[in-house]
Amino acid sequence: NRYIAVRHHVEGSPSVDDFEVKTEAVRWTPESGEVLVRNMYVSIDPYQLNRMKRQSASHHSVDVIVPGEVIFVVHRRPTDGEPAVIINAAAFCGCVCVQRIASYGAGEVVASACEEYKEGDVVAGMLAWEEYSVFRPASVLLMSKVDTSSGFPLSYQLGVLGTSGMTAYGGFYEVCKPQAGEKVFVSAASGSVGSLVGQFAKLAGCHVVGCAGTQAKVDMLKDKLGFDDAFNYKDEPDLKAALKRRFPDGIDIYFENVGGEMLEAALANMNTYGRVAVCGVIAEYTDPGRRAVPDLLEVIYKRITLRGFFAWDFIARFHEFTAIIGGWIEEGKVQVVEDVSDGLESVPSAFVALYRGENVGKKLVKLA
Amino acid sequence: NRYIAVRHHVEGSPSVDDFEVKTEAVRWTPESGEVLVRNMYVSIDPYQLNRMKRQSASHHSVDVIVPGEVIFVVHRRPTDGEPAVIINAAAFCGCVCVQRIASYGAGEVVASACEEYKEGDVVAGMLAWEEYSVFRPASVLLMSKVDTSSGFPLSYQLGVLGTSGMTAYGGFYEVCKPQAGEKVFVSAASGSVGSLVGQFAKLAGCHVVGCAGTQAKVDMLKDKLGFDDAFNYKDEPDLKAALKRRFPDGIDIYFENVGGEMLEAALANMNTYGRVAVCGVIAEYTDPGRRAVPDLLEVIYKRITLRGFFAWDFIARFHEFTAIIGGWIEEGKVQVVEDVSDGLESVPSAFVALYRGENVGKKLVKLA
Repeated sequence: NRYIAVRHHVEGSPSVDDFEVKTEAVRWTPESGEVLVRNMYVSIDPYQLNRMKRQSASHHSVDVIVPGEVIFVVHRRPTDGEPAVIINAAAFCGCVCVQRIASYGAGEVVASACEEYKEGDVVAGMLAWEEYSVFRPASVLLMSKVDTSSGFPLSYQLGVLGTSGMTAYGGFYEVCKPQAGEKVFVSAASGSVGSLVGQFAKLAGCHVVGCAGTQAKVDMLKDKLGFDDAFNYKDEPDLKAALKRRFPDGIDIYFENVGGEMLEAALANMNTYGRVAVCGVIAEYTDPGRRAVPDLLEVIYKRITLRGFFAWDFIARFHEFTAIIGGWIEEGKVQVVEDVSDGLESVPSAFVALYRGENVGKKLVKLA
Repeated sequence: NRYIAVRHHVEGSPSVDDFEVKTEAVRWTPESGEVLVRNMYVSIDPYQLNRMKRQSASHHSVDVIVPGEVIFVVHRRPTDGEPAVIINAAAFCGCVCVQRIASYGAGEVVASACEEYKEGDVVAGMLAWEEYSVFRPASVLLMSKVDTSSGFPLSYQLGVLGTSGMTAYGGFYEVCKPQAGEKVFVSAASGSVGSLVGQFAKLAGCHVVGCAGTQAKVDMLKDKLGFDDAFNYKDEPDLKAALKRRFPDGIDIYFENVGGEMLEAALANMNTYGRVAVCGVIAEYTDPGRRAVPDLLEVIYKRITLRGFFAWDFIARFHEFTAIIGGWIEEGKVQVVEDVSDGLESVPSAFVALYRGENVGKKLVKLA
């Protein structure tokens, strides 16, 4: 088994030198009770960087990747009556993550020591950046058998029908609670989540404006994904003014993927009772000096709600959400944008590219 | 009629020189349809400063005090089905606020040009920093006749049974949604709102810690108001560590009155699904350079909700809230802390004192 390891804690922007490909024997045995999967696709997501840092607020709730050891910090376990929410990614990853980067993925069962899974089954769920992963069915919360007759490419299971879809659907419908006619702003709108949120917002009857970092992405948002408007934030020296021009009646919902000045500008343009779904803050992941300094008077006087969330908050409704999204894809109402690299060796460069804004849509690596 | 006027926009910390006492003829006429009130108490509140600034996010939703003119910015009017929420303070103030500072107050009707109110009625509601105010009943949303047989001092109508009580009750029960056993942190805990929130939290079965700026206030929180613990933030060079010591199991609810570093420290100590009720940020009112720089990764990974609100959001339930609070006072479950200055001339110094942390509990000025 070849896998991607982090050489050391990653601080600031990641580089390919932070990673290396290592080799080990495949860990599965018939007595293990585990399922061995040959991974076919793994997902590349910005949030993974936080787990590679020496210190990060993410360490409260997900496992930390530490060269040579694993720290499990379980902050609060769900109690009865709470939705089945994952506090600790390691708990559902199911694999021991020493130097290994957990990742959503899809693959084929090549050996199974439990009844539920058979050789040849195609599965999608929490795996890792490696060629072969093992999981223990009882300790895995998100692992689905893929219906290969559905007609969807397998890669969709990682993005639009996987965590990206769950994040976008749950974040938009459950956190933002949109109403028809509301004005929605999406940052990093050409990314895996943003590209879906904008399309969901149109389906909800909202007016949607997105921002992205190249003209090609801006064109895609308007021409292919149906955004009402889009702009290149790099062309805008004054983000507040840029949003004011595009939202003369104010923003009701801001789907936050970026942080920093973008959040400040959005708050300044929000309407009373505005909602901010804090999904990600990619601009702050690599540089705490770029953190947003929000004007809390905006929050008070406009009674704005900011709410942090992540995909796992909606895990109990995963199949409900993905069934709806799947229907929309079949009806042609949702376009899927993917950006696929090839081979395990390309994982580090694919990951680094996320932070350079080089991906368009969901970033994946095809392994087999 | 003598009234307090602002000489010019106030930026930074207010000083008594920013204000002057002016005199005018009483404006009431029998044809006006208005009610003339001789004010007996007026309220002194930190938020009033925001309305005196040249620029402030508060100007989105409440009237701005501008020497020589009034700017009305109505951002979004409530629509059917929404609670009766005040967007523009001028709309319920009912008086034209040129150079005049709207304030909650209580007084006696001395002349009335409408059926509802009679000479001798005692009323409490939105008045102004002046000896005589007029209001037009149809355009006033918060004006109540006071039941003088209730046994409560009239001053209570401005604080615990007025906007401070409504803010504390609505902010704690509706925004924070406490559950018994949860850990609650209250900043500016000896102030008009904070002192009530802490007591309400104890009544809700929570563990409550407050902070304040003098040892005398800290002692009062613990000895008189029943806080489980309290500390003087001026004695703590490291607020994160100070909160960590007092909340070894983390904070579930933070009732925010301060902003700046206090919010950063609270977020770092919050638990998963923590809630922050953003009531006020007094540290930021006088110095935008002290704004909080929150770590949004805390917000995302711990799925924290921050929600801005103010008293008027709960106006439809004002009488419900104050009846409950009144019952608690009668049963001795809630202690009332007031800080009363005397005479219209003392209004500026009373207001300035708020920003020096010199008040203990609800700050009022007794006029007559």
